[in-house]
Amino acid sequence: MGIFQGGYAGKLLYVDLTDGSVQVKPLERDFALKYIGGRGFSSRILYEGLRAGVDPLSPDNLLVFAAGPLSGTPLPSASRLVVAAKSPMTGAIGDASSGGYWAPELKYAGFDAIVVKGRSSKPVYLWVEDGKAELRPAEHLWGKRIHETGKLLKEEIGDEDIHICAIGPGGENLVRYACIVTDEEGVGARTGMGAVMGSKNLKAVAVRGSQDVAIADPKRFQEVIDEYRQTLEGEVWTETLRRLGTPNLVAHRQKLGIWGAKNFQQATIEGWEQISGEAFREKYLVKVMGCMGCIVRCRRYSAILDGSCTPFYTKGPEYETINALGAKPYIIDPAVILQAHFLCDDYGIDEHGAASAISMAMELYERGILKKEDVDGEELVFGNGEAFLRLIEKIVYRKGFGDLLAEGTRIMGQRLHAEYYAIHVKGQEVDASDPRSLVTRALTYCVATRGSCHLRGFPYIDEFITPDEGMKYFGTTAVSDVKALEGKGKLVAWSEDWITIANLMGLCIFAWYRSRTFSMLIKRGLDLVTDAYVAATGLPMTQEKLLRCGERVYNLEKLFNYREGLGRESDYPPPRFFDEAMPDGPGKGAHLDRADYEGLLNDYYTARGWDPATGRPTPEKLKELELVEIG
Amino acid sequence: MGIFQGGYAGKLLYVDLTDGSVQVKPLERDFALKYIGGRGFSSRILYEGLRAGVDPLSPDNLLVFAAGPLSGTPLPSASRLVVAAKSPMTGAIGDASSGGYWAPELKYAGFDAIVVKGRSSKPVYLWVEDGKAELRPAEHLWGKRIHETGKLLKEEIGDEDIHICAIGPGGENLVRYACIVTDEEGVGARTGMGAVMGSKNLKAVAVRGSQDVAIADPKRFQEVIDEYRQTLEGEVWTETLRRLGTPNLVAHRQKLGIWGAKNFQQATIEGWEQISGEAFREKYLVKVMGCMGCIVRCRRYSAILDGSCTPFYTKGPEYETINALGAKPYIIDPAVILQAHFLCDDYGIDEHGAASAISMAMELYERGILKKEDVDGEELVFGNGEAFLRLIEKIVYRKGFGDLLAEGTRIMGQRLHAEYYAIHVKGQEVDASDPRSLVTRALTYCVATRGSCHLRGFPYIDEFITPDEGMKYFGTTAVSDVKALEGKGKLVAWSEDWITIANLMGLCIFAWYRSRTFSMLIKRGLDLVTDAYVAATGLPMTQEKLLRCGERVYNLEKLFNYREGLGRESDYPPPRFFDEAMPDGPGKGAHLDRADYEGLLNDYYTARGWDPATGRPTPEKLKELELVEIG
Repeated sequence: MGIFQGGYAGKLLYVDLTDGSVQVKPLERDFALKYIGGRGFSSRILYEGLRAGVDPLSPDNLLVFAAGPLSGTPLPSASRLVVAAKSPMTGAIGDASSGGYWAPELKYAGFDAIVVKGRSSKPVYLWVEDGKAELRPAEHLWGKRIHETGKLLKEEIGDEDIHICAIGPGGENLVRYACIVTDEEGVGARTGMGAVMGSKNLKAVAVRGSQDVAIADPKRFQEVIDEYRQTLEGEVWTETLRRLGTPNLVAHRQKLGIWGAKNFQQATIEGWEQISGEAFREKYLVKVMGCMGCIVRCRRYSAILDGSCTPFYTKGPEYETINALGAKPYIIDPAVILQAHFLCDDYGIDEHGAASAISMAMELYERGILKKEDVDGEELVFGNGEAFLRLIEKIVYRKGFGDLLAEGTRIMGQRLHAEYYAIHVKGQEVDASDPRSLVTRALTYCVATRGSCHLRGFPYIDEFITPDEGMKYFGTTAVSDVKALEGKGKLVAWSEDWITIANLMGLCIFAWYRSRTFSMLIKRGLDLVTDAYVAATGLPMTQEKLLRCGERVYNLEKLFNYREGLGRESDYPPPRFFDEAMPDGPGKGAHLDRADYEGLLNDYYTARGWDPATGRPTPEKLKELELVEIG
Repeated sequence: MGIFQGGYAGKLLYVDLTDGSVQVKPLERDFALKYIGGRGFSSRILYEGLRAGVDPLSPDNLLVFAAGPLSGTPLPSASRLVVAAKSPMTGAIGDASSGGYWAPELKYAGFDAIVVKGRSSKPVYLWVEDGKAELRPAEHLWGKRIHETGKLLKEEIGDEDIHICAIGPGGENLVRYACIVTDEEGVGARTGMGAVMGSKNLKAVAVRGSQDVAIADPKRFQEVIDEYRQTLEGEVWTETLRRLGTPNLVAHRQKLGIWGAKNFQQATIEGWEQISGEAFREKYLVKVMGCMGCIVRCRRYSAILDGSCTPFYTKGPEYETINALGAKPYIIDPAVILQAHFLCDDYGIDEHGAASAISMAMELYERGILKKEDVDGEELVFGNGEAFLRLIEKIVYRKGFGDLLAEGTRIMGQRLHAEYYAIHVKGQEVDASDPRSLVTRALTYCVATRGSCHLRGFPYIDEFITPDEGMKYFGTTAVSDVKALEGKGKLVAWSEDWITIANLMGLCIFAWYRSRTFSMLIKRGLDLVTDAYVAATGLPMTQEKLLRCGERVYNLEKLFNYREGLGRESDYPPPRFFDEAMPDGPGKGAHLDRADYEGLLNDYYTARGWDPATGRPTPEKLKELELVEIG
């Protein structure tokens, strides 16, 4: 029995690229209630459908595209697509998220998710339209960059309003951190999903639909939307995001001194004002954009048209762009950063993957471990923007030294016998911030199920918690003290479950997370979303059950990883964070303390109901989460 | 309680490269009785010591060097070393075997096995002498080829009689099929053990000892040795091996038409006489050699000194050399084959790995899938010996196109979207013979626990079995019919267990296997070896128990692989063997039949007591084998 109304499209599309068959299956009500959507659907499908040890780039891997039950509704920010597979970077569960219009369009086309298996013998694209799907030849698209692919597909299909999820040459050439790009503007960047898509010879998935997303209680749903909008409008954060986008964080990172510049050898940046949100706004902003239904409007659209380089338009930059392409290789030049950003997106590779690989190589070059003849004759020092741009192109086409860079820092470390300089967790490079000055931040990066990630949990919630709220929600007033360790295992676990809910619903965590107070965060993050889900789907749901869904999916992902051999030992930071103190800035002298880290990891496992010795969910926990049958 | 006499040295050496510590542990009697030695020790140690999913090139992998209880005794052919780790080629259990003098010397130095974990921050070698061991700097050896490494080590230690197990630049540069080489003459070639050693920054293990291998019943042991020698001397096969070495098989393979030439596109070779055993003997043989204690003397020592190329001496060639470096790339020129052989051994890479990668590239080039600009401008057609030699060097140093070739055919297939042309099982390339004309041969290649392998089981035993013996040992007279399928699942399983015994004892399977009659094969392979084990160790053993040990280890390896995700689906041949008929020779038109294969695989699993749906050993089988505790 499928669900044919209420938030869900009610159908799942199964595509077998090996034999070219396409199958539609109903979405089961129990499945939907237990896993909600998005990352919940994909993680469950991957756990069930994959054997342990499957080669991520083999036809046996599955690639899942999943929307959420609120995707395609006018609820602000409910636009996120989850694309998921076993990751070729980590060997763990892989998923990436992308905003824009693709996930809503998938719902309008009548599907909640697409599950792709096998491998086509020749390049193909998938064309999905109003409940039907077919594979079409894509040899003429193979080799094309993202913008060109979109243009050609729109011409071929004869419809400007289709939405496209595609890979560029990066994914085709199996660059390990290749990404998938939606509509030339949204990037599912991390864990190498573009390489998986490339390994399947699947160039693109184009969707178009005209079906409604039925709402069970439209009147109540509209009330919730109104209230959600109001809470968003009332936030200072919304105002800041609208004006500067995520690059507003540049000033913040400089103030805290957590840049991780020069491959995590420097904490602050001299001349950071040149690459601030203000600087990018002033010099390159063309227009402000937003995802479907979102009132925040944090997206940027920028261009360089002054003749200083080949002219281009690009979405972005984001803060992470500036972190990756600016801080890591220490290129304090907004024009080079924006060019590199355009190249990464148009070629379809993750900025952090490319930047981390090149930055690691820069450090090895400066230390004399790599010689000029090893790096195609480049003078590969930090700050060399021209070499940086050349190497991005070489990565994409796996030319010369780019072939090794395309493997990412973990394999570079192995190949060059220089693992110490590979700054990753589980094979995925550390993004966002240097966590040495905040052990809870380090913990969230390290336990993140998809490898190092700053988006899997937000322990910084303690900034908004009063001691009273700390006692009420986490059983200790200490949890509101940012530097205290007490209660933080529980806080991290809670924040992971709570963020997971956003990923299940298809909501943007920027709209979801930032609040001035903890009570506001609970309101928007739990009260309103529960109400929205009930109003949209007509299904029974409570705040408590929803948190339980988040916890269930997190446990399921941990089980996936454990089955792949990733136990406690995989939840540790790179040794540099223990062994080297931060050299400058407000956090100067800070490094992770091993005893603190071990203690916090134990607390976290205990809070999660996982065996501290192995990091595996206990049978009792699995039973409690109704995951017994696959434990 | 260790065993300090009777075949065993009684001690295991544990080396942690990360912290530089060395530890000696006693060998337990129960462990020895259950796993015997060699591949039994290594498989058990790997199963216990590794997590599922561990990256084979990470410090977490273990590398085991193991001798057998008969190694170091004068029993003919008891000289084999097993080197084992999780394989970087297959992700399955990896092990390789090498003859000569290293394993006996390890026993004389007081150890049955060495277990290496971790990773040294700088290149080191391990020096083992009479019960002691230490790590020494090896930066001056890093980058050196095998012959040069041996020369320098002997000078440094000041002893010409040390025995050395080393890697060359191939292992250092993590060529996925890098091998380890003992004393410049024995090659543990397959499953990429050299890459694992390289990833650990371990350049060599040098051993020297003056201790005896104590024999429990010397008089009886001498009787068994005499009888074993007599059975060997009486074989026609011994005579042939002594005269021509394994290259005697060249004529045989041509007669059967199972060369697998041109990346398995051609079954016979025009002008094969130029690369026959006779031809190599006549042109290049310098002297005949043998492993410690062996009377067969099948080893060759050859040279090219006529000025046609840089002069060199090399052990070999073997038949497999000629198959790999001659047939696969279709280079019907003994001088080029011998040069390529010398390079592979001196650089430390597996000939089949290198030849398969280049041969696949040649096919892709001829089909237009690879262009000249993709292969560094080479005219990469079959038979181009100069390009072949150049590419071997490029593989070792991962230069240009060599960097992709160094990954092996499975990854080449993924990267080039040309998986059909990658002729491997589980990631290891098919060696020895084209199995299309004999489905039992195909089965043994496909179910081999270390990936495609012609040495894991010998179903051809049916050639020697009379119908009466068939009925007695396998319950059907049909088993003696080479082409019949009935009883063959059981025959293959039996032959795998029986060959495993040789690998546990440290015996050479060439001395072990060939016989004119099945009863002779049982005699030498079971009667005499059981007697030898009892006489040497003083431990209780029967033929039945010994076969059970073989079965136990085979099941343990299957469990290892299953834990890594390799189930039934990993036990299939490359699609070419189903889809393309052999184009020429006596087997013309033959291809594997899917129904036959499925049926035979079912029979095999059933005979093994494994679940046909998954290929996993059943709980009942594990209990029977006393493997319950790790099932």
